[in-house]
Amino acid sequence: MDDRIQLWNDLAAQIAVDSIRCTTKAGSGHPTSSMSCAHLLSVLYTSHLRYDVADPESLANDRFVLSKGHAAPALYAVLKAIGAISDDQLMSLREFGSPIQGHPAPVPELPWIDVATGSLGQGLAMGLGMAFAMRLDGAPGRVWVLLGDSEAAEGSVWEAVEAAAFHEVDNLVALLDLNRLGQRGPTMHEWQADAFARRAQAYGWHTLEIDGHDVEAIDAAYAEASAADRPTFIVARTEKGHGVSFLSNQEGWHGKAVPADQEGAAIEELGGIRSIAVVPPQPEEFKPMMLGELHAENPPLIDGPVATRKAFGSTLAWLTGHRPDLVVLDGEVGNSTYTEDVEVAAPERFIELYIAEQTMVGVQIGLQALGKTAFAASFGAFMTRAADFVRMGSISRANLRLCGSHAGVSIGEDGPSQMALEDLSLFRALHGSTVLYPSDGAATVKLVTEMCDLEGISYLRTTREATPALYGPDEGFPVGGSKTLSASEHDDVTLVGAGVTLHACIEAAAALANEGITARVIDCYSVKPIDASALRSALDETRIVIVAEDHRPEGGLGDAVLDALASTGLLEGTVIKLAVTDMPGSGTAAQMRAWAGIDASAIAERARTAVSRR
Amino acid sequence: MDDRIQLWNDLAAQIAVDSIRCTTKAGSGHPTSSMSCAHLLSVLYTSHLRYDVADPESLANDRFVLSKGHAAPALYAVLKAIGAISDDQLMSLREFGSPIQGHPAPVPELPWIDVATGSLGQGLAMGLGMAFAMRLDGAPGRVWVLLGDSEAAEGSVWEAVEAAAFHEVDNLVALLDLNRLGQRGPTMHEWQADAFARRAQAYGWHTLEIDGHDVEAIDAAYAEASAADRPTFIVARTEKGHGVSFLSNQEGWHGKAVPADQEGAAIEELGGIRSIAVVPPQPEEFKPMMLGELHAENPPLIDGPVATRKAFGSTLAWLTGHRPDLVVLDGEVGNSTYTEDVEVAAPERFIELYIAEQTMVGVQIGLQALGKTAFAASFGAFMTRAADFVRMGSISRANLRLCGSHAGVSIGEDGPSQMALEDLSLFRALHGSTVLYPSDGAATVKLVTEMCDLEGISYLRTTREATPALYGPDEGFPVGGSKTLSASEHDDVTLVGAGVTLHACIEAAAALANEGITARVIDCYSVKPIDASALRSALDETRIVIVAEDHRPEGGLGDAVLDALASTGLLEGTVIKLAVTDMPGSGTAAQMRAWAGIDASAIAERARTAVSRR
Repeated sequence: MDDRIQLWNDLAAQIAVDSIRCTTKAGSGHPTSSMSCAHLLSVLYTSHLRYDVADPESLANDRFVLSKGHAAPALYAVLKAIGAISDDQLMSLREFGSPIQGHPAPVPELPWIDVATGSLGQGLAMGLGMAFAMRLDGAPGRVWVLLGDSEAAEGSVWEAVEAAAFHEVDNLVALLDLNRLGQRGPTMHEWQADAFARRAQAYGWHTLEIDGHDVEAIDAAYAEASAADRPTFIVARTEKGHGVSFLSNQEGWHGKAVPADQEGAAIEELGGIRSIAVVPPQPEEFKPMMLGELHAENPPLIDGPVATRKAFGSTLAWLTGHRPDLVVLDGEVGNSTYTEDVEVAAPERFIELYIAEQTMVGVQIGLQALGKTAFAASFGAFMTRAADFVRMGSISRANLRLCGSHAGVSIGEDGPSQMALEDLSLFRALHGSTVLYPSDGAATVKLVTEMCDLEGISYLRTTREATPALYGPDEGFPVGGSKTLSASEHDDVTLVGAGVTLHACIEAAAALANEGITARVIDCYSVKPIDASALRSALDETRIVIVAEDHRPEGGLGDAVLDALASTGLLEGTVIKLAVTDMPGSGTAAQMRAWAGIDASAIAERARTAVSRR
Repeated sequence: MDDRIQLWNDLAAQIAVDSIRCTTKAGSGHPTSSMSCAHLLSVLYTSHLRYDVADPESLANDRFVLSKGHAAPALYAVLKAIGAISDDQLMSLREFGSPIQGHPAPVPELPWIDVATGSLGQGLAMGLGMAFAMRLDGAPGRVWVLLGDSEAAEGSVWEAVEAAAFHEVDNLVALLDLNRLGQRGPTMHEWQADAFARRAQAYGWHTLEIDGHDVEAIDAAYAEASAADRPTFIVARTEKGHGVSFLSNQEGWHGKAVPADQEGAAIEELGGIRSIAVVPPQPEEFKPMMLGELHAENPPLIDGPVATRKAFGSTLAWLTGHRPDLVVLDGEVGNSTYTEDVEVAAPERFIELYIAEQTMVGVQIGLQALGKTAFAASFGAFMTRAADFVRMGSISRANLRLCGSHAGVSIGEDGPSQMALEDLSLFRALHGSTVLYPSDGAATVKLVTEMCDLEGISYLRTTREATPALYGPDEGFPVGGSKTLSASEHDDVTLVGAGVTLHACIEAAAALANEGITARVIDCYSVKPIDASALRSALDETRIVIVAEDHRPEGGLGDAVLDALASTGLLEGTVIKLAVTDMPGSGTAAQMRAWAGIDASAIAERARTAVSRR
């Protein structure tokens, strides 16, 4: 036992020293926030985290999530100790081009990091997602999430706490590094460990309070957590900058490197530079369960009017029969988004997270990190609740398949709080994202199926009301493509729509045809990437492009079209954007579209005027 | 007492009946969710809410927030009972053009509604903001927030619970309408009132559990809450659809109107149509305190290099001396955004909300509803955490003054999790928003000062590093304007920048000048509204416009420029957008801008190529 205690303490000192070394060399970073959790990490990686360093993607492994991402130096120091990275790599912290970034990110060079952190309060939901994945696979693993005390102010932490307790996830352990000091001074509850334990208990977690620098207490707590039949919340009282007299529990040191002239003294107090190597306990042998009965039915055949949200649900339900890796998350609106069809088809792969969109997306990030193809859906308006989680998902290189229903003013009577009017903008702006917006059932079936194999963030926008069928079941809808529904060599104008506005464009074109104006109609079902080539030809050939969208004028389809046109060279022509420019109220879908000036009549009128002025 | 009981029960029945009547007429809506809270509202408005119906904006009033916004029919029914609206208005629910929308919104016709609700989990933070405003004013009022049990799954609710307890706000009462049924079935905790009471207690609230249809119990609970020295959380066990046998506690009735052929029976069970009018208790006489010692110093004079975030803080601190209504909110990053300067200048008007951006913005909505000029700041990246709150703020017609610091890859070493790269997109897409992006200290002073008087959502983007001074202290920066820094009649190309990229444009123009290429440089400090006229002239006169931004290519400055150009008529020319198109890592600010291709060298190179190809 004494040897173990010595090793734990020595490794903790090494983690602290290495955290100081790499941040001092970088000239910035968070050494003191790393030092407070050094003992917690030392005992975890030495004796409790069952982890094959050579096979970090193994589903048999335990997982560790550093929710307090600014303590990245401590994580990198541990990765060095377990032989994942070299000391040279560690010392490249924060350098341009180095994978050892200021906050952890799962770049290809670092397969030991599963998710990006650094926006606080997100790690527990991600860990919960991993715990769900393990449960689905029948894996023996456990997820350990290290939280900071400052980030406990984020409601998203307690949202995830609630969800974990409700779902009786017993393979999730939260470690709260209670170091008392936040970025600018004392935290709300400072060292009141009982404040946090009381909260976690109230939600139904098993809780423990320990001295976070007492390695024996930590070891015992981890053992107790491993044996618990509930998620366990360990509140560890620690000191920021622990082990160095001039840093320990001192204000004014958050996010500051130790100056080079004080580095030696700090390292000396910690016993000097060490190069201890440890091997974490090895995971149990394990073979993932194959979930669900797979069957090979044909895809849903939709040849009449249908709401694309309904087609989304039908397609997902069908896909569960083909993809054992498919998991679907709901934010208690499954009867609106139609993910409820999945609950019927494959109940074990439908996870109800209630009205908690941040947890829903965090869980999704965790699930996909462990190989699941995870979809999540809510009203498009409410997907904005998870904006920062989705943003971090993109930094996590996560494959997130999201669906936002109830797009635009077309939802009608419920009013603006339920209308997604900024969702295209939100999802288009994310790096590497794909944004899809089908206008009928057949397109929805194809696009949802394609989403299963897309990388990065993909977003499907669906409509509340039924829309007529436009396409047959054999029509293909490649991402990045478009459909030109009517075109001639002498078109006077081009009408671009997607989703509900495509139908308005078709109707407008018919009205214009009666007046001798021939309109080309383009279905931009792929809003990002968009079919720049088709749009370019349309501008060159018709000189007038009118884009109609049930969305704000900023960041949506209209801006996507303009960007595509600008990116293909010299602009010569007129581009008119029709969008929702005022604040809507209630009304029928048709009334709302007429009010917004995005219905067939408004589109035809703008086309008429533009053509007459040519 | 018997008379009061009779009145409370009769009014509750009237609220239930009126909720049925207006939703049946509309053909949609949430009667059953309204019926569960009818008794809670009846007792509140009859006997506890101190409220002058004729002067709803009086700061002496108590305030009511319907966090479960879908119970709007109940709120409208109460407004009818207190004489604020007529029965005809009530019956116009959900009709096009009616202020009686599907969810409550503070449209001009309804001054009795302070904030928009309908995206769940936001009302408590808004109520907390109102409670803060009352405390600042020394007002005797109390804020009553009605929550649904489904929305209690949102972490934002508990984030606000935590903040209210920490700030010892004793004039805030939460009423939880525990009706057991959510949108698609039973809630997580169904009728386990103690589950919620336990949570609220753990955070330090005074808690009560009652039968939410027992008017005497409700009355006693309200009296106890009014006397409490802490925020009070009342868990009221209720029935969805209470009072009608075929609706009461039945699944499948969420968000459904009673069919016309069942309406009569439902109303009959509730005792028929009534027209009770009640007058709420009148508020105490009260005169708001004038806060802070006002002084008339000159604005901060910044004539050297400074970080715009620092200039933001200095300006706010100065403004506290001129505007007694100014309140500043921090998300525990005040030493990064420099709102900490306000804490020094006017500590009583600086509210630390810790790392809880949703609560911060919710509180801000509440503060401005009671007349405060409220600023809130965090890293731009973390403002995305509050995206849905800001969205609802725009529906609330709220005047929100937001600042996001640490814009773009220019933050350098901390890496992508801390970089605001999608913030311009987020804020541009909001209805009626203003987006400002100063490039030096003098511009920041002016723009922050102007923000105090802007309506709607305004967003200021600031930079981490110091930037050189470009303007003198007398330069004006009107919203919607721009600055043309260098122009001639024969410019070859236009370079458009804002914030850090403006400095790169200036440097690029100098380099190009050495090669005989004359570049016009435009400072688009007002990203929305943007100076379409200056941009149009630039395109017409130079035919090549290059826009550089430290942001994603979607939804930011480049799209704003394209939109402005398209909206002013026929496009003839080339528009080139330079933006951050890949996923950044760590590095110095200069390295990151070079990597992204948005520094002076990249801008000059693109200009050179474009001019040579002309």
